[in-house]
Formats: sequence, structure tokens, C-alpha cells
Amino acid sequence: MALIVQKYGGTSVGSIEKIKKVAERVIEYCKKGDRLVVVLSAMAGQTDSLIKLSKEITDTPDTRELDVLMATGEQVSVSLFAIAVKSMGYDCHSLLGFQTAIHTDQIYGKARIRKVETDRILRELDENRIIAVAGFQGIDERKNITTLGRGGSDTTAVALAAALKADLCEIFTDVEGVFSADPNICTHARKLDRISYEEMLEFASLGAKVLDIRSVEFAKKFSVPLHVRSSFIRSEGTMVVAENREMEKAMVSGVVYDKNEARITITKVPDRPGIAFKIFDPVFKAGVVVDMIVQNTSVEGLTDLTFTVTKTDFQETIKLLKEIAREIGAEKVLGDQNIAKVSIVGVGMRNHAGVASRMFEVLSKENINISMISTSEIKISCIIEEKYTELATRALHEAFGLGNENEKK
Amino acid sequence: MALIVQKYGGTSVGSIEKIKKVAERVIEYCKKGDRLVVVLSAMAGQTDSLIKLSKEITDTPDTRELDVLMATGEQVSVSLFAIAVKSMGYDCHSLLGFQTAIHTDQIYGKARIRKVETDRILRELDENRIIAVAGFQGIDERKNITTLGRGGSDTTAVALAAALKADLCEIFTDVEGVFSADPNICTHARKLDRISYEEMLEFASLGAKVLDIRSVEFAKKFSVPLHVRSSFIRSEGTMVVAENREMEKAMVSGVVYDKNEARITITKVPDRPGIAFKIFDPVFKAGVVVDMIVQNTSVEGLTDLTFTVTKTDFQETIKLLKEIAREIGAEKVLGDQNIAKVSIVGVGMRNHAGVASRMFEVLSKENINISMISTSEIKISCIIEEKYTELATRALHEAFGLGNENEKK
Repeated sequence: MALIVQKYGGTSVGSIEKIKKVAERVIEYCKKGDRLVVVLSAMAGQTDSLIKLSKEITDTPDTRELDVLMATGEQVSVSLFAIAVKSMGYDCHSLLGFQTAIHTDQIYGKARIRKVETDRILRELDENRIIAVAGFQGIDERKNITTLGRGGSDTTAVALAAALKADLCEIFTDVEGVFSADPNICTHARKLDRISYEEMLEFASLGAKVLDIRSVEFAKKFSVPLHVRSSFIRSEGTMVVAENREMEKAMVSGVVYDKNEARITITKVPDRPGIAFKIFDPVFKAGVVVDMIVQNTSVEGLTDLTFTVTKTDFQETIKLLKEIAREIGAEKVLGDQNIAKVSIVGVGMRNHAGVASRMFEVLSKENINISMISTSEIKISCIIEEKYTELATRALHEAFGLGNENEKK
Repeated sequence: MALIVQKYGGTSVGSIEKIKKVAERVIEYCKKGDRLVVVLSAMAGQTDSLIKLSKEITDTPDTRELDVLMATGEQVSVSLFAIAVKSMGYDCHSLLGFQTAIHTDQIYGKARIRKVETDRILRELDENRIIAVAGFQGIDERKNITTLGRGGSDTTAVALAAALKADLCEIFTDVEGVFSADPNICTHARKLDRISYEEMLEFASLGAKVLDIRSVEFAKKFSVPLHVRSSFIRSEGTMVVAENREMEKAMVSGVVYDKNEARITITKVPDRPGIAFKIFDPVFKAGVVVDMIVQNTSVEGLTDLTFTVTKTDFQETIKLLKEIAREIGAEKVLGDQNIAKVSIVGVGMRNHAGVASRMFEVLSKENINISMISTSEIKISCIIEEKYTELATRALHEAFGLGNENEKK
């Protein structure tokens, strides 16, 4: 009799029919004797239409009240789900952020979970109920409603699994699991049976949309076994677990790309102490997330500084940087939105030399120029021209033998 | 500097434009120095579409979960309202049932308010905020969400006004106030400037849809001065206050009708002790609300018993009664849905003899047959054929001199 936390995303509960299907699936588990805590997102499209409603009033809706508004999305889906479960003869209670209770800090729109209470859930589980928890929402210390930001329901599920010491946390989504590459690009892409938390973190931060990165961090911290799988297909998905020896046999687990980045370069920056702070402090303060940063060796006291931001932050950052460049006496600010980041990820890299040079060789053979490189212990990322994204992904996928076809060899 | 509780109904907040208008109106009060607690209903149509959604799953949705679903309606309107107020430069916080907090019993769908906390509202008022409270909702002692039933937002407003010892509770609605008769039927109907709680109770229970009856009971119990007025027109509405000498000058305040009743008669009931209990206990237990009950004098140990129920309960009650009639050995069960109840109301009746006979005379002159009569200290109700409703209303309105035209005489 396992205690399982399941999370179903917005497309999985996107209609009354789909909500009923989820209810049936959850009940199957109960019939096997498992105890279920089910975390739901808002029905697909719901969150966007609520935001649209608020924008009819003002372009900058108050963040506290926007969270109150947003939280209704999950409230609707958990109550409908519980109605469905009860109509099928099983007992079920929905619980909202304040009832569970999920305590967060007070940063509206992207609050972080501080503490999850388990008393009420455990008591209701003991009363033989299925528990439907509204994802994405919590309360701060003054009982104000907060939301965790996009992808927040994943975090709700993992945090609950950690607090409840659940045997398993299953994330049901619209894909079958984590793939060795985007199956839309690589026809031979293979579903990975198991990957480590570290690899999943890299996948998530490098652009794979399967799991919210905070939820993976949470899972890693509390050793919550994650199972990422499809809501619509019954096959097994991908287990995300602690690293083990078996995993290290493969050099590379997958190839990931991200077309949502843009590159900015400031040329001839006077190279003196504190200059990086002067440049990046206003950028960070404007809420811009900077990804890769590369600084060339200084020549005659002047250096070029290049970094990447998301395309949505591009225009604002360019504008900000032009002011900064004037202040610090740099030459000019250049920008390029036609770039993509292609990365290879794998815990095996730790024990295999030459993975990076192999990657460069593959790209070179395809005549793809690399304009920036960033590495960590278990990943290598290259910035290339956007138009080569698919070609690079396929070439790397094949060269590192990741596909189904290669398996058969 | 008055503390005012205002309530705006579903049609008053039925669109983004209307929500903005309400925000502007509330801000006008603030500019005059008043402190405002604003109770809102769900946007018109919202509640019905949520119910419809749940009915797509099952015809008998779980009541606990239905309340969780319903409560999102008011959550949406208070957050949008607060967004509107803040966008106009005034501070505003929305508060939900669990935040205020409004404590109720655990009867989902028609919970009764037990206690209203005021700490948080008073603190937020001291911080110079407008407070937007979600009407219609509360929490039980286990923090489950409950709703107060149709018209519940009126009760929320009055309960808050009582707990906060507010100077005034204003109910903004889609009519201009309480009228001496339905203006759709009587062109001369007059808006009443002041009526007593008792009269308002009779008006509400006799079919006038202006105010929820529980809210009037609450207002009377705690002497909360009520002002019923239009959301769309700036003129004064009707003040509902404690009875005073001035009011008693008028014999009758208004004429009310209700077409939503149906009549049921059981003939030749053996007249013995306990028979009324035997008949009505199963009816009450089925949740049927019985209005008027008339029992004829017994002839040869047999009596006829007649009573009225709402049209929606008619079929079910007939079915139930047929079984009961068999059990107790009564003759048969007759039903009639083509009836209406016409009533005259006024605290002045206490001091004026002959009001009832005057009413019977007026109806008789119009050739309208009276099939049942029920009286209280301040009202007289007659059951007549439904098709005479408008005629009876107009005739009584004129005979008792209630209209604008008569005033001029």
C-alpha cells in the first residue's frame, strides 16, 4: 500500500471529459490499495483567460489581487475533479492552499514554498479519502493568497511528496517522458527510462519544458523519486532519481536546444575591478535573467563582454545596456536574436574525457559556427545560429549514439 | 467619517465596465472621508455557468465540492474589483471567507453565519484601505468552504455591518428601492422612502425579490440601518429601519404578489390527534417548504386540509401525499398550480380595524374569488386564481391609496 502524490497538468484536465478520465485513472490506483494525493493545475486556457480579464482593467494589475484571481483556476479544477470522483463512488475532498496548508513567502506571482503542513491531509487519508490539492497556490504568514508562478503545480506536488514522505511522485503531463532529444526534430529520439536529478536539472534549465526546475531542485533536496509520464498513454515514463553507477556508463543522456535566447555584447569595456558589477547589477535589478556570460581576455585594458538573455527581455536589456555603456565608457552594444543554444547533458561526462571536443568536431563537420561555449560538470552548451538548431540537434544525437536506431546496432 | 458596508449584486458587477463603475462610486465615498467595506456577489451569470459545468459531470454534484466551485465566483469579482480600485490610485485588499473570517455551520449550500471576525478588516481599514469582501461564502470549523445560498451576499453584508458596528449598510441592486407594488404591473407604484424591518420581512417572504429574508432578520436583530438602492441611478432608495410612530399613520405600505406557489388539498382526513404531524413530518423531512396551511372545521370526524408549497416542490409533494393519504385513510389528494398569493403589508394595520374586510371587498368587486386566507399582525394574504394577479394588485394598490397619483389628491 503505497502513498503516491500525482500531479496532472492543465492539458490533462482541459475539459470535463478529461477530468473524468483522470478521476477514473486515480480510482484504479485506489483499487490496488494505494493512497492518493492528487495535485491539479488549472484547466488549460483558464489561467490565460483570467489574465486577459484583468488586463481589460489595467496593463499592470496589482500582484496581490492577481494571485487571488489566478488561484480560482485550480480551485475550479480540484472541485470538479472531486465531484467526478465522488460521482464514481469514491470519497474525495479538495483542499486549497490555505486548507492544506502550504506556507510561502510573500512574493506574489512567484512565491516560494516555506513549509507544508501535513496534519489535515494525513487525517483525511486516514478517513479513506482521495485528496485533491490545488496546485500553484499557497498562503503567506498573513493568510494572503500567493501563487508559485508558471509550472508551480509541479513544485506543489514535489513539496507535498517530500513533506508526506510519499513513496512516489508521479508527474502526469502531455509528453511520454524525458527524451534523448526533441522527438519533433529527431525521429530516432528515445525515451529515457531513468535519469538523475542533476541531469533533469540541466534538461529543465536548458530548455526542455517537461518539468519545472524548482520542482526538480526540491525533489533532489529531499530525494523524492519522480516519475514523469503521459496522462494519455499508459506506458511507463521516465524515472528521475539519485545518480547511480549504471547511469555513468552512458557518456551523454540527451541533446537539448533552446531557441528562446538572445545574445548581447558590449565592446571595449574598460577592464577594471567592479566593472562586471556595474554592468550586471542594474540588469539583475530589472528582473532580467542572464544565462551564459563570456568575457574575453583583456587587450590593452579593454575587453568584450557577451551574455545571453531570454528573447522577451532582449529589447529592455539593450536599452538598459546602452545607458550603462555610456556611463562606464564602453564602445557599443551589439545584439543578436537569431541564435539558439544546443546542449548535451549526461552524468557520464564526469568519467569520459573528450566529450566536449567530440561535440565541437560534430558541429564543425556540419559547418556550424560556435559563438559561445559554456560548460558544467555534466553538460556542454554551445550558442549557434538559430537556423542550424535542428541540424545540430540531429547530428549530435546521432554522433553520441542516443537514438533507437543506434541501440539496435 | 462614517463606516459604511456596501453590497453590490451580480448585475452591478456583471462586466469589467460595471466593475470599474462600482470602483469609481466607492472611491467617491472615500473622497468624502468615509471608510468602506464592499461586499460583492459573483459576476452575473457566473454562478449559473459554474453549476452547469458541474452538471456535465453528474446531476447530483457533491455539496461540499459544489461550494468550493461556487466560491470562485465571488473570488473573481473581488479580485477584479480590487485591481480596478488600485489602478485608480486607491489602496484596496480583497478578503475571502477564510481571511475575513466568516464562520458558519457546516450545511453546504445554505450555511448560516455563526460569527464574523473583525480584527483583520479593522486593521486593514486602519491602514487606509478599501476592503472588498467576497459575499456568499464562509468557512466551517474545519476550514471547509461553505456558501450561504442564493441571496447570501446580502446576509454577508448585514452580518459584517453588525459585527463592525457600521453606521450604515447599503444594498446596491438593480431596482431603485422597495415599491408599494411591482412597478411592472402598477404604473403608479411609489418608491417607499422608509419601511420597518417587520414590513421588509413580510415583503421579502411574500415574494418581493429585493432583499434576502435572512439578511433582513439579521438587520432587525442587530438594528443595522439598511439602505436599499440602485447601482445604476444616483437617487435615494428605501431605508429599512426600526418601526416608528410616523410609519403607523399609513394603514398599508404595499401590495406584494407571488406566482410561485401551488395549492394541495387532502380531502376527508380522519380528524384525530397527531394527524397533522403524520401528514407534514414526511413533507418537511423531504425539504419541502410549506407556506399557508388551512384546516376546515371537522364534519362527522372528517376534515379537509389545504396548504401551499412552491411550484418547484409541487410534483414531489403530490407524490409523497398520495402515499400518506393511503396510510391515514384520507379520501384523495387534489392539486392546483394556477394560483397566486396577493398580500397587503403595513405596520399601520395594528391600529386600523377593518383592513382585512376592505381587502376582501376590493377583490369581491372585481369578481375575484378568494380560496385561502392567511393573516399576521402586519399583513393579509389571499390565494386567488393566477390569472387575476395583476388585476388584484392594481385594484388593491389603488383602493389603499398607495400610488403617486393618489398622493396628489
